[in-house]
Amino acid sequence: MTRELSVGIVGATGAVGLEMARVLEQRNFPVGRLVPFASARSEGKTVRFRGEEIPVTVLSEQTLPGLDLYLFSAGASVSREFAPIAARSGVVVDNSSAFRMDPGVPLVVPEVNPDAVADHAGIIANPNCSTIQMVVAINPLHRAFGLKRVIVATYQSVSGTGLKAIDELDRQVRDYVEGREPVPSVYPYPIAFNLIPHIDVFFDSGYTKEEMKMVDETRKIMNAPDLKVCATCVRVPVFRCHSEAVVVETEKPVTVSEARSVLANAPGVEILDDPENRVYPMPRELAGTDKTYVGRIREALVFDHGIALWIVADQLRKGAALNAVQIAELLFERGLL
Amino acid sequence: MTRELSVGIVGATGAVGLEMARVLEQRNFPVGRLVPFASARSEGKTVRFRGEEIPVTVLSEQTLPGLDLYLFSAGASVSREFAPIAARSGVVVDNSSAFRMDPGVPLVVPEVNPDAVADHAGIIANPNCSTIQMVVAINPLHRAFGLKRVIVATYQSVSGTGLKAIDELDRQVRDYVEGREPVPSVYPYPIAFNLIPHIDVFFDSGYTKEEMKMVDETRKIMNAPDLKVCATCVRVPVFRCHSEAVVVETEKPVTVSEARSVLANAPGVEILDDPENRVYPMPRELAGTDKTYVGRIREALVFDHGIALWIVADQLRKGAALNAVQIAELLFERGLL
Repeated sequence: MTRELSVGIVGATGAVGLEMARVLEQRNFPVGRLVPFASARSEGKTVRFRGEEIPVTVLSEQTLPGLDLYLFSAGASVSREFAPIAARSGVVVDNSSAFRMDPGVPLVVPEVNPDAVADHAGIIANPNCSTIQMVVAINPLHRAFGLKRVIVATYQSVSGTGLKAIDELDRQVRDYVEGREPVPSVYPYPIAFNLIPHIDVFFDSGYTKEEMKMVDETRKIMNAPDLKVCATCVRVPVFRCHSEAVVVETEKPVTVSEARSVLANAPGVEILDDPENRVYPMPRELAGTDKTYVGRIREALVFDHGIALWIVADQLRKGAALNAVQIAELLFERGLL
Repeated sequence: MTRELSVGIVGATGAVGLEMARVLEQRNFPVGRLVPFASARSEGKTVRFRGEEIPVTVLSEQTLPGLDLYLFSAGASVSREFAPIAARSGVVVDNSSAFRMDPGVPLVVPEVNPDAVADHAGIIANPNCSTIQMVVAINPLHRAFGLKRVIVATYQSVSGTGLKAIDELDRQVRDYVEGREPVPSVYPYPIAFNLIPHIDVFFDSGYTKEEMKMVDETRKIMNAPDLKVCATCVRVPVFRCHSEAVVVETEKPVTVSEARSVLANAPGVEILDDPENRVYPMPRELAGTDKTYVGRIREALVFDHGIALWIVADQLRKGAALNAVQIAELLFERGLL
């Protein structure tokens, strides 16, 4: 009989937290007991797991300890305060940005750097959603051809911001249909029928924190400290799945068919690339899926050796909840949990 | 007294054609007589100009000749058939792709290569919408710092496809609000809450014709035959204005403040770039405007010398109708019309 674990989800009523419970159930993770934690605001709410409605536990120093595994997705400040407490009794997989660049904390995408889980000291960080799907697709190219430069423009859906942002887009299109002016609240401007080239805060360099996550986290996960990355991150009026236009320069020569063959054998990647039959990844069709979908594979045209790609993945699943559960599975399989 | 011209708009009931009439009126172009041409399908329709409803003339070999200036925007096959006929009596400014890459036809963006108008033999081509706004923004950087490579990802609104596509997005969001499944007709897939990385037809290379227009037309307009350009063109659920994430590598060193100062003095460019105060170009806010708006100006991070930009412009105006009328103004001012 498989050993069963007690598992806490911190931020269990959020978009990612709800998805974490679903993914644990769908993948038959050996959960003996699930404890959904949330803030006092969510007291009285329940989280569905294996057909049962489990009441949330209000998160506190007293209620948190004692479980084997904690999946955190309640923002960086909650993680900073509570993850160290949780890590005293169990292992934390943290979906926030709080510990990602901490040299003592592994930042893991199981398809890319599974062995890094071994080095944890209680906390393992789950990367940013837009980074996860990019490294799943470009790390195989890096291993085969050596990457020198990565230029990425993102098309990020509102579910990356959370349930409130999903409601905001929904409300704004209803406002449109009913002839009302949209009133933004989650985003600084209306997101319906708009594009907002501003995700997370701005640095003095003119880059956003979201863009610099794609630089720094990619280097750490791929163990490629000198890799050059330039990102432009844009919020788009799509409910779910992030999309990315990526151009890479490689050290070694690479043809489209070589790149395609490497990606066809890459873990977690599914190629959707048959332009003649109008097959390419699109966010609306891929909501709720688990792979990183790659299409529009073609020569980069601007480099001696390079490839252009179009990458789509469900950022609530592979970009967040699924990747976190995959990390927990790795720990479990390796006897580290 | 200014000489007045007889002006035909071919495709006058389309999204660009209607905008052409508006732009001619707003800019006080010396129109003596306006003749809106359309296909038999549009017989009985009128086009508003200077407060008057002018009935459309059905386009034919017989009805077309005899005017001073023709603005064509009815698709490449109509231009191929009728522009040579029109060019016998007047000068044609053609918004289709039919003649753009013809070595005998100037391809003109007045802010970039105004002098090229002089070489026309009856037809002057108006570039593709996504190309126009990009060259307005990057040509000044090319003149100042020398461009080596351009990597662009586009976020193109549905009005680039025409009035039917505007209706399709409108209808699909109403379907969403009323709980119906969207039925795509203009696009191969639903565009509401989706991204379609497919604009115009695919070539064997995996690139679309839209993407290769951005390569070939940019080189021709900027007279930079060796410039390397890689484009990914994506349709987004926005009604109006195209947006572009652009990264350029330059020959010469360039700082953000040098790039900003060049762009501040560039014709047709307006900088909207004050991240601290959440100022950056967004398509929803810029519909109906005439400039090419540039923001998010920052170091490219992937090149020794390079700049990243976010560019937004109204593709019905600067990307089509306005650029065509500006070409006509140039011809008129230079006595070439």
